[in-house]
Amino acid sequence: MSIKVSIDASGGDYGIPTTIVAGIKALGAFLDLHLVFVGDQSSIQAELDKHPHAKKYAKRFSVTHASETIAMHESPSIALRKKKDSSMRVAINLVKDGTTDACVSAGNTGALMAISRFVLKTIKGIDRPAIMGRMPTMGGHIHMLDLGANVDSKPEALLEFAIMGAIAVKYTENITSPTVGLLNIGEEEMKGNDKIKKTSELLKASNLNYVGFIEGNDIYKGTVDLVVCDGFEGNIALKASEGVASMMGHYLKRAFTKNIFTKLIALIATPVLKDFKSSLDPGKYNGASLLGLRGIVVKSHGSANADSFFQAIKEAYLEVQVKITEKIATQVSLELKQNHE
Amino acid sequence: MSIKVSIDASGGDYGIPTTIVAGIKALGAFLDLHLVFVGDQSSIQAELDKHPHAKKYAKRFSVTHASETIAMHESPSIALRKKKDSSMRVAINLVKDGTTDACVSAGNTGALMAISRFVLKTIKGIDRPAIMGRMPTMGGHIHMLDLGANVDSKPEALLEFAIMGAIAVKYTENITSPTVGLLNIGEEEMKGNDKIKKTSELLKASNLNYVGFIEGNDIYKGTVDLVVCDGFEGNIALKASEGVASMMGHYLKRAFTKNIFTKLIALIATPVLKDFKSSLDPGKYNGASLLGLRGIVVKSHGSANADSFFQAIKEAYLEVQVKITEKIATQVSLELKQNHE
Repeated sequence: MSIKVSIDASGGDYGIPTTIVAGIKALGAFLDLHLVFVGDQSSIQAELDKHPHAKKYAKRFSVTHASETIAMHESPSIALRKKKDSSMRVAINLVKDGTTDACVSAGNTGALMAISRFVLKTIKGIDRPAIMGRMPTMGGHIHMLDLGANVDSKPEALLEFAIMGAIAVKYTENITSPTVGLLNIGEEEMKGNDKIKKTSELLKASNLNYVGFIEGNDIYKGTVDLVVCDGFEGNIALKASEGVASMMGHYLKRAFTKNIFTKLIALIATPVLKDFKSSLDPGKYNGASLLGLRGIVVKSHGSANADSFFQAIKEAYLEVQVKITEKIATQVSLELKQNHE
Repeated sequence: MSIKVSIDASGGDYGIPTTIVAGIKALGAFLDLHLVFVGDQSSIQAELDKHPHAKKYAKRFSVTHASETIAMHESPSIALRKKKDSSMRVAINLVKDGTTDACVSAGNTGALMAISRFVLKTIKGIDRPAIMGRMPTMGGHIHMLDLGANVDSKPEALLEFAIMGAIAVKYTENITSPTVGLLNIGEEEMKGNDKIKKTSELLKASNLNYVGFIEGNDIYKGTVDLVVCDGFEGNIALKASEGVASMMGHYLKRAFTKNIFTKLIALIATPVLKDFKSSLDPGKYNGASLLGLRGIVVKSHGSANADSFFQAIKEAYLEVQVKITEKIATQVSLELKQNHE
C-alpha cells in the first residue's frame, strides 16, 4: 500500500525551491511514498526540471495547480474565507477527498489551523485540535502539546490533549506507555491554579501513564515522554527557549570572533563546534502535528530549509503508516464510553 | 546616611558560609552599608572569625540570633505560622521595626513571600506583591515580572505589576522612561486571550511607555526594558530558559570532552569558553525584588554562591539608595487618584 502526502509547495518563507527539493529527497528515502505538489504549476515544473533525480520518481508524484498563496502574516480568517484556491487550501482539500493521506505545510500556522479545522473537521469527541511538537532534551527528544493553538484551555481540553499526544507518541515513537507530565510552576504554596489542579485530577483518573507536575526546566531534562500544557504557556515556553538558544549562540560566536587569536582558536575548534551545533539542530525536530483532526496535517517551521522540511514530510509519512487518526479516534471513543458508563 | 540591610544568614542551599562571605564583600564595596546577620549566633560568629577582613568592618555589622531555620521545601504556611523565630522571619521583622531598610534572603521563595506579606503588608493600592528579576539579553539585561508569585492575575493586577516594575527599572537602572512589553503569543488569529487584550487596553491608557505585545523570544533580544506577565507564564518562561541553557551547556561540554583530540582543543579554547561563560553567568543577574511591599525584600537564588549572593545584597543596597518603596507608593497613589477622577 502506498502512502500519499500532499505538499503545500508554495508555503513557508522559501516556498517552491525548498519544498520541491525536500519532496524529491523524501521520494528517494521512502519507496512507497507518493507526493502531490500543490502550487503554481509552471513554477513547480520549472523547479522540478532543475533536479535530475525528479524524473526517476516521475511515477510517484504529480502536480496540482493552485492559483493563490497565503502570506505568512495574513489573517487566518481572511485566508479561510477569501483564498479558496490557495496552495494550502487545495493541499488540505486533497486529504479531505481521499486523494492523499496527509498534508504538509510550512505556511502560516493560524491559517493552517483554521483551514484544517474547517475542511477536515475534528474527530468525534475532540473539541479543538492541538499542535504537538518535538523538543530536544539532554538525552534525545520528547513531545509537547499544545504549542499555541489553544488559549484558556479547560481541564477537559487538556485531558484531550494528553490522550491524543500519548497515542501519537506511543505509535510514532514505539513507546508502549509514554509517561505524561503536566506543566506547572514550582513554588510550593502557590503550586498552580485551580485549573491545573483539576486537570491533574482528571489525568490521575485516566488510563494514561501520568506522573504528575513538571516544571519548565524538566522539559529539557527529558523527565517525561509527553508534556501537556495550555497553548499560551506552551508557546511562551517554546519561544523563550528559542530566544535563549539564539542568545547563547550569539555569545558563543562573539567569544570566538573577538580578535585574531580567538578566530584562530575557532578554526581549530571548528569540528567540535560543528558537532555541538548538530546535536542541537532544530531542523532535526521539525514537523509539528495538528492532532485531533479527521486527517493528518503536519506543520513545518516557516523558515525550514530543505533538510528540515524533509523531516516534516517524514513525520507525516510515519503518522500515515501507523494510522494515527484512526488510533486517536478509537482511543477517544473508548474514553468517552468509559466516562458515560 | 547609612544603608542598613538584614541578611537571612541561614537561608539558601549553602547558608552561613556563603552569606557571611558575601556580606563581608559587600561591606568592603559599599562604605555606607551596615549589615545585620540573622541566624544561629555561634555559627555566624564562627564563620566571621575565619575572615580576617571581618574585624575591619566590625563597626558596620551586628549579629541577631534566631533559633530556627526554614527548610527549602517547607510549606510556606507552616513556616509562617510555626517558625516565628526563623532567621527569615527575624530578618524581615528588622525591616518592619525600622532597624534595617531592606532584607536579603536566599531561602524558600514561597515562605519569603508569605512572611513578607504578613509582616510588612503591601503598599496602599497594591493587592499582591510580585517578583521581578533581571534577564540576560544579547545586549545586556532587562527586567521581567511576575516570575512566579501570582497565578491567574487579573488585568488590573498586571497593570499594577507594570507600574511597580517601571518605577523600579527607572530608578535602579537610570532609564527615564522604560519601555514596557506585555508577554503574549504570536499566532495572528489566536493572539492571546481576553485577559491579555484587556490588560493591553489598560496599559495603553496608562502613563507607562507601553510598546505592546512581545513574544517569548523577544525577552532575550532585549526588545523592551520591562516584560510584564502573569506569574504562571513568567515562571514557566524562566524555568524553560534555564533548562535550555543547561542543555546547551551539557552538549557543549560533551562535544569538547568526546575524545583526546577534542579535549586538547578544549584546552586551547579555554579562555574563549571562559569568556563565553562569563557573558552568561546567571550570578550576575542574581537578586529578584519582591515589589509592592512596605519594605524592600530581595530574593537570592537558593543555590547562589558568595559572588552571586553579593549581587543580591547590591540590589537591596541600590533599592534603598533610590528609596524604591516610597517611589512606588507615590506612583501608585497618583495612578489611583487619576482613576478616581
